[in-house]
Amino acid sequence: MPYLALLRHGESEWNRKNLFTGWTDVDLTDTGISEAKNAGQLMKKRGLHFDIAYTSVLKRAIRTLFLSLDELNLLWLPVKKSWRLNERHYGALQGLNKAETGKKYGEDQLKIWRRSYDVSPPALTRDDQRYPGHDPRYANLDEREIPLTECLKDCLTRFFPYWHDTIRPELLKGKNVLIVAHGNTLRALEQHLDSLTNKELLELNIPTGKPLLYKLDNDCNPIEHEYL
Amino acid sequence: MPYLALLRHGESEWNRKNLFTGWTDVDLTDTGISEAKNAGQLMKKRGLHFDIAYTSVLKRAIRTLFLSLDELNLLWLPVKKSWRLNERHYGALQGLNKAETGKKYGEDQLKIWRRSYDVSPPALTRDDQRYPGHDPRYANLDEREIPLTECLKDCLTRFFPYWHDTIRPELLKGKNVLIVAHGNTLRALEQHLDSLTNKELLELNIPTGKPLLYKLDNDCNPIEHEYL
Repeated sequence: MPYLALLRHGESEWNRKNLFTGWTDVDLTDTGISEAKNAGQLMKKRGLHFDIAYTSVLKRAIRTLFLSLDELNLLWLPVKKSWRLNERHYGALQGLNKAETGKKYGEDQLKIWRRSYDVSPPALTRDDQRYPGHDPRYANLDEREIPLTECLKDCLTRFFPYWHDTIRPELLKGKNVLIVAHGNTLRALEQHLDSLTNKELLELNIPTGKPLLYKLDNDCNPIEHEYL
Repeated sequence: MPYLALLRHGESEWNRKNLFTGWTDVDLTDTGISEAKNAGQLMKKRGLHFDIAYTSVLKRAIRTLFLSLDELNLLWLPVKKSWRLNERHYGALQGLNKAETGKKYGEDQLKIWRRSYDVSPPALTRDDQRYPGHDPRYANLDEREIPLTECLKDCLTRFFPYWHDTIRPELLKGKNVLIVAHGNTLRALEQHLDSLTNKELLELNIPTGKPLLYKLDNDCNPIEHEYL
């Protein structure tokens, strides 16, 4: 029976600076690099072997995947990258300091933007330099797919087709899968696998650098899961 | 019109030890890591942008690609890995010292194994621990595809289907392509692109860490090429 390991990228430069990151392509800190290597070691000690890996098009996740595959001696593994695994897009908050945003808009508003299911942060405009349509990695997307902002629900909605159409079929074939992604896309997947309510989803926090291992039955239903 | 950059991996641990490497999965030396980063810098200075990259399933090439993409700020690029881009398999010579092999078998025999077009080194047997069929990365290959040894012609023969069926169609679509591979697979491709005779092929040497840039016409014929 196949297994699925989920890993959130290690600490990024903007995690450390307490800035809203979203789709901003910031790199790992030295701590984040250590977390990624350690995650690979944990999976290796457990004797895990994967057949395919998935990640986003953001370098903090891609580098975390590379470093952990290196520890596993699995650099040769097929790796697929998709924008659908990206972190939630934080709209016009991207690049702003979380504490300053709280002072400016009030902590209650901040909490709504950060933690509500269906309220989006203020949207970008398409002439904003942060608009993803200016970035060549999103050049093949339909303009309607490129977010100006995302609430958690939006993030789930664009992630799920990739899960259903691309990742899940590999598990159904019996392949062992590693996904290295971001807090919100991994929360979305955990909600789905564990049938959590939206309220439970909002309370779910995914630690960085700790592989979460799901053992699945042949229909891709979780039998058990644990952090390594 | 599209372009194609070819890059041979940086110095490996066994290049330095003067051992026959072939499909042995040895890593880069510190010099090799510097060569890989420098190659990325050279492509960046030239303003190159790629749409897709290809490499082998051997870590010295995969790491060279990762390091050069990192310099280009293109870690998000789709990367495809194939055993068909692997170095020539050196059969039962893999792991032997080149100088000692020359003393044992004679320099003339050694030159024939290293430099002839269609004479293979001694073959592995399937119970040899070096037989690729024991390695999970080759688990999906038909046993008839797994080499016990390869002459240069064999290496070309298994590389070309990948070029024709997978890489070339991307160039024909106008995509810019980066290939990070090995001395013999890159020699094969250069022979094909530049219509070299087998004699010219045997004299061709590909330096490590120096990107070779081909400008192509819309039918994938080379217009000009140069080392960066």
